Amino acid sequence: MGIVVQKYGGSSLANAEGVKRVAQRIVATKKAGNDVVVVVSAMGDTTDELRDLAEQVTPMPPPRELDMLLTAGERISMALVAMAISALGYEARSFTGSQAGVITDSAHGKAKIIDITPGRLEQAISEGAIAIVAGFQGVSQDTKDVTTLGRGASDTTAVALAAALGATVCEIYSDVDGVFTADPRIVKAARKLDRVSTEEMLEMAANGAKILHLRCVEYGRRHNMPIHVRSTFSQKEGTWIIPEQQGAPMENAIISGVAHDKSQAKITVVGVPDKVGEAARIFETLATTGANLDMVVQNVSAASTGLTDISFTLPREDGQTAITALATLQESVGFDKLLYDDQIGKVSLIGAGMRSHPGITAKFFAALAAAGVNIEMISTSEIRISVIIDGTQIEDAVRATHTAFDLDDTEGEAVVYAGTGR
Amino acid sequence: MGIVVQKYGGSSLANAEGVKRVAQRIVATKKAGNDVVVVVSAMGDTTDELRDLAEQVTPMPPPRELDMLLTAGERISMALVAMAISALGYEARSFTGSQAGVITDSAHGKAKIIDITPGRLEQAISEGAIAIVAGFQGVSQDTKDVTTLGRGASDTTAVALAAALGATVCEIYSDVDGVFTADPRIVKAARKLDRVSTEEMLEMAANGAKILHLRCVEYGRRHNMPIHVRSTFSQKEGTWIIPEQQGAPMENAIISGVAHDKSQAKITVVGVPDKVGEAARIFETLATTGANLDMVVQNVSAASTGLTDISFTLPREDGQTAITALATLQESVGFDKLLYDDQIGKVSLIGAGMRSHPGITAKFFAALAAAGVNIEMISTSEIRISVIIDGTQIEDAVRATHTAFDLDDTEGEAVVYAGTGR
Repeated sequence: MGIVVQKYGGSSLANAEGVKRVAQRIVATKKAGNDVVVVVSAMGDTTDELRDLAEQVTPMPPPRELDMLLTAGERISMALVAMAISALGYEARSFTGSQAGVITDSAHGKAKIIDITPGRLEQAISEGAIAIVAGFQGVSQDTKDVTTLGRGASDTTAVALAAALGATVCEIYSDVDGVFTADPRIVKAARKLDRVSTEEMLEMAANGAKILHLRCVEYGRRHNMPIHVRSTFSQKEGTWIIPEQQGAPMENAIISGVAHDKSQAKITVVGVPDKVGEAARIFETLATTGANLDMVVQNVSAASTGLTDISFTLPREDGQTAITALATLQESVGFDKLLYDDQIGKVSLIGAGMRSHPGITAKFFAALAAAGVNIEMISTSEIRISVIIDGTQIEDAVRATHTAFDLDDTEGEAVVYAGTGR
Repeated sequence: MGIVVQKYGGSSLANAEGVKRVAQRIVATKKAGNDVVVVVSAMGDTTDELRDLAEQVTPMPPPRELDMLLTAGERISMALVAMAISALGYEARSFTGSQAGVITDSAHGKAKIIDITPGRLEQAISEGAIAIVAGFQGVSQDTKDVTTLGRGASDTTAVALAAALGATVCEIYSDVDGVFTADPRIVKAARKLDRVSTEEMLEMAANGAKILHLRCVEYGRRHNMPIHVRSTFSQKEGTWIIPEQQGAPMENAIISGVAHDKSQAKITVVGVPDKVGEAARIFETLATTGANLDMVVQNVSAASTGLTDISFTLPREDGQTAITALATLQESVGFDKLLYDDQIGKVSLIGAGMRSHPGITAKFFAALAAAGVNIEMISTSEIRISVIIDGTQIEDAVRATHTAFDLDDTEGEAVVYAGTGR
């Protein structure tokens, strides 16, 4: 048997009972003959509580110190998990990100992993112990300071360690059973997928599916690491996320799922003079704000006016900054006005099969039209079609699309959906 | 100006307001031209809360993991203090025990400091920053595991760092104004001492005074480090604890204070055959339990029986273990029975001046007699006389002694005592 890396999220570790339940699963995996390395998040809402505490002290905490503070959360949960395993008669040793060899750059709060030197983990498992590692954190190569990798990054820690250790699988445990064809809170008939390709999962994560962090999936694809998303609260198989070239072909379905995202906003720059370089100036200015643009659409200019409109979408939290930056350009570029709309939604249809199946777009748009949904913007990749629509129509659009592509569960089995994700 | 090391306890850091108040004191010290290194305890009751959490998971947590858990407490407080300083416009960097170079042995839960390598602290202060260090914790030399130094050991961290950094003073902040001639909760007329010798403070700490941890005082004596015990909540000078050979002579008072201790128990082994080696067997057995014996008294044996009684005192928490171990000897040693009394108290009179002043013992015992207090056991050092008495008479005995040696505050100034110690 090989090394299994397991990651448990905060909802699985909400209290002492949760910690003990997780310890039993870990020990069962060890008993089955595997070497086990476990990555944990902070318990329940600990990270948010620590953020609140910082907020009470100062609205602008230095990033280095905020990282020092937040990493206390995983420290607590990893020690408790190790204790609970010990109470079951197995040896466990907990390690901070630094001790586990998670080497990062110095970008506090959003550090990137640049190397993994898991010598202490390898020694622990070679001595028969189970290694428990704090997720979400590392140590900076230059300054030896404690860093954090950003919200939800414990998944990334797990996959990175799995790759560095040559694990056979990286199991991501949460309170949901796996990856679904759509959000089961919206689509009652959503089905759990047994397998999904890494490429499809990337598109889902990038387009609103919250089950896995985007960076985690990217890391898994780059290192060819199979990821198994499953529930802490059941013994059922979850969803395997597997590079396409590996092993058996994917499920035959053309479409693997419908993702949606309500976290974006749309900005329209109205009446931009249609001259060379004007659009470039607008997007250069946006780039300086660090805003992460998603879709961009430029209308054909009206011949009579020589003016055009440029629309783009971006995370809602970046909206105000972008508007402020663009307003400074109004006089020099000479555009008419800025429109801001945060009542939009994005629906994405994802499936590796659409590469070889024409007509998917037509069927998608027909389903939306039949549901009375108007399309505002469109973007596509090789295995995805996304549309921006009115935010209030998101749920109708997801359900209509799910049904149109025969994704509904017709077995009559009620899907029990345990929670909200992490 | 030189380096000032300050230590703030949990009661000074109970909440965000406390953290901000502490930050202001630190910044004031920096503004006065000092380099400042700060040692912090965990906030309020955090350490006890973490212990409770461990208890919920398992009654017997592995010591390595308990240390990993508990050290989260100082991590939180040090980051918050650094943030609060930053909010006041000064740079602060927090460091774990490991980062601060607190190297210990591997005795988890009660590790001893074996070296201090404060390179990162020196770099921080040379760059103008204030260094904030987690008290109570270090890293083991052999295994590079996180260790804790035992309850109350943040004081020890502070003095050890002060010595290693060549600081001019180690300031220990708590919620009391300094060291008093007796516990002000018992003796209303107790006076704050302006100075006390390290030797006297050692005797006080070892005999029940809770203001400073014994190891901290020992460390200060060994490294000739002046310790200034003072209140976070006032600007008044506190008590200076200074090696006798340094500077001006101590206060002229023969007696510096009256300490008391209610945490001990007395065991009497009744009817021990008065033969060579029997007492040795009893104390060898006790040594194996790790019990820390304090006073030991052996009666002259009665000529008629050839039997003697051996009494000793020890921390009450070691009482049951000691009784159990001794019971196994009853048959082979042939003693009659074991008596256990945990309703005892110890009162100690401490003063470097008693070296050169005869008659102190007589005056002490006369004061106790006048107060109707019966003496059960006696022990002395060069600068201390301790008696074991009935536990219910402790307060009467302390007050009578305090008055007899003219320690009462006759200035008429009411002593305001802020709290219980830490």
